[in-house]
Amino acid sequence: SRSINLAVVPGDGIGQEVVAQGLKVLRSVLPQDVKLETKEYDLGAQRWHRTGETLPDAELESLKGHDAILLGAIGDPSVPSGVLERGLLLKLRFAFDHYVNLRPSKLFPNTATPLAVGDEQRGAIDFVVVREGTEGPYTGNGGSLRTGTPAEVATEVSVNTAYGVERVVRDAYERANARPRKKLTLVHKNNVLVYAGHMWKNIFDKVGQEYPDVTTDYLHVDAATIFFVTQPERFDVIVTDNLFGDILTDLAAAVTGGIGLAASGNINPTGEFPSMFEPVHGSAPDIAGQGKADPTATVLSVALLLRHLGHETEAVRIEEAVAADLAERDASVPRTTDEIGDALAVRVAS
Amino acid sequence: SRSINLAVVPGDGIGQEVVAQGLKVLRSVLPQDVKLETKEYDLGAQRWHRTGETLPDAELESLKGHDAILLGAIGDPSVPSGVLERGLLLKLRFAFDHYVNLRPSKLFPNTATPLAVGDEQRGAIDFVVVREGTEGPYTGNGGSLRTGTPAEVATEVSVNTAYGVERVVRDAYERANARPRKKLTLVHKNNVLVYAGHMWKNIFDKVGQEYPDVTTDYLHVDAATIFFVTQPERFDVIVTDNLFGDILTDLAAAVTGGIGLAASGNINPTGEFPSMFEPVHGSAPDIAGQGKADPTATVLSVALLLRHLGHETEAVRIEEAVAADLAERDASVPRTTDEIGDALAVRVAS
Ligand SMILES: CC(C)[C@H](C(=O)O)[C@@H](O)C(=O)O
Ligand SMILES: CC(C)[C@H](C(=O)O)[C@@H](O)C(=O)O
Repeated sequence: SRSINLAVVPGDGIGQEVVAQGLKVLRSVLPQDVKLETKEYDLGAQRWHRTGETLPDAELESLKGHDAILLGAIGDPSVPSGVLERGLLLKLRFAFDHYVNLRPSKLFPNTATPLAVGDEQRGAIDFVVVREGTEGPYTGNGGSLRTGTPAEVATEVSVNTAYGVERVVRDAYERANARPRKKLTLVHKNNVLVYAGHMWKNIFDKVGQEYPDVTTDYLHVDAATIFFVTQPERFDVIVTDNLFGDILTDLAAAVTGGIGLAASGNINPTGEFPSMFEPVHGSAPDIAGQGKADPTATVLSVALLLRHLGHETEAVRIEEAVAADLAERDASVPRTTDEIGDALAVRVAS
Repeated sequence: SRSINLAVVPGDGIGQEVVAQGLKVLRSVLPQDVKLETKEYDLGAQRWHRTGETLPDAELESLKGHDAILLGAIGDPSVPSGVLERGLLLKLRFAFDHYVNLRPSKLFPNTATPLAVGDEQRGAIDFVVVREGTEGPYTGNGGSLRTGTPAEVATEVSVNTAYGVERVVRDAYERANARPRKKLTLVHKNNVLVYAGHMWKNIFDKVGQEYPDVTTDYLHVDAATIFFVTQPERFDVIVTDNLFGDILTDLAAAVTGGIGLAASGNINPTGEFPSMFEPVHGSAPDIAGQGKADPTATVLSVALLLRHLGHETEAVRIEEAVAADLAERDASVPRTTDEIGDALAVRVAS
């Protein structure tokens, strides 16, 4: 479309800084004739301290009207753990039915990794995790009884539906089918979590019959972590549950240049609700306001946003700019958040 | 005590081979005056195929009479996923109240790691995970409704009790307090799994007041995986939930020489039931019977077994033998399972 009506939720900590760079690059990459409108939403720790609100209904309603959401980071140590995560970030993912949480990982040249990889192996590390985003242990089902006493019992219920699993598994097959290697790995723990695990595996196998060109594979989540560090190049597309996806994508980020580079899209593929794009990293309060945060993950999230809205050319332009920028980075010459944003904005414009 | 009445469960795949080496080293290290009695239990895939049984009551009862259990590996692709894991391995852990699942990780010199570590960092990587073993998502609570239909719902319930969490947390503080660095890290996901996570955190903080010398730390499980690959030397003792512990200890094994070296103890600290010692790796059916399995993890599990039974000198002797053996390994000259066992048996004897 020839206009983008974007909601911006900078959030907490470094969220402000990185989102500013994401918008800078977005403005720079868009052709003249695409009109960009943005509306900033004041949500996060400060709002909560001021008003006690995390995400009021009116704002949720207003957010619905946008084409997409760009989010910085949510969470602050001054707020009890879970309040903003559940009341704002997860509330958005659930309310807008973001069932595909898309997290690509690619080890660019000249990018630091804790792994001892050779050049050939490095070049082959390029995979994407399709994390389910609306079910599993993230539903908030559960509770606690006799809280705070020695007789307390606390439960967390992982809720999984065939409806929810099939749609995300199908999305993952589509993505695998569209990639050169056409390989899809299901990660679960079906030798222990037999109810959810078997349902996932059965649906995975059933939907797979519709994709004869896709090679499939199953790994228990514990074994998957081993391959993430010993043979990350074996992965192409991975589909997994909400919690396993959370864990694996931080690990994926760590081995492919760090969370400063990891982008994500919380996608509602039907288009019924706006999709939301955010760096995988958190609010990093320890470095907030110091210009030390790497905005690259946010900029790459903007690329995912553009791709989702049909601006493929611009998405690729950003990804190429990031690759070129990384290739020329000199780790001994640190740049500020702003400088990295500027450099990327210049690259995508030319 | 001057006698050890040991139950041996070789299990499946490479289980037989590695357990044989574990026993060889055990026999070699024990002083003449310690009488070793062993009884082998035929449990695992073959038994199941033959009789449909995983762990009959009579055998469970008989196992109770031993001082400890040495287990090889459980699981085979010919058996539906979950049958042996739930019906045998987890049944033992739960029936014998193995609430401390102890998994030490140490990066020995001259040992391959996928991480690009310098010598100094390598020497500092030495931590132990205290994984809760009787609760969490492993309880088998949950179920499925309308199984196999498009309307299926499958749940997995993580059950956590103050009773269960406090005892394992206390055990972890004791272990941290006895180590030079005295540092304990709690790993959970209390920003999402708020019921269980907050209970864990509250109990962790409360018990901590009794251990003023122990420095404490909290990490979300996703962030923990990052540190496992970027700064594993930051960890000393980690205490965590059953599922997070499962995931983290495979990752820990991967970064500290591979699962061929990772030992574990399923410990019932009260001594009411026999504790069980097993390598972290699985039955590896692809290499079973070929003499390719590294028995070192099983041998190190025997060291944990001896320590648990009060034979500290012999435990240390085994660990030193393994360290010496690893230091002299030449990766270009592969040895058979038997050869490694022989070499370790000779070392501990001298
Ligand atoms: C902040 C937290 C709720 C969130 C999650 O667990 O999904 C984060 O870790 C992520 O991966 O986006
Ligand atoms: C085989 C499986 C049930 C087991 C577990 O999940 O605990 C294994 O992965 C382990 O870590 O001992």
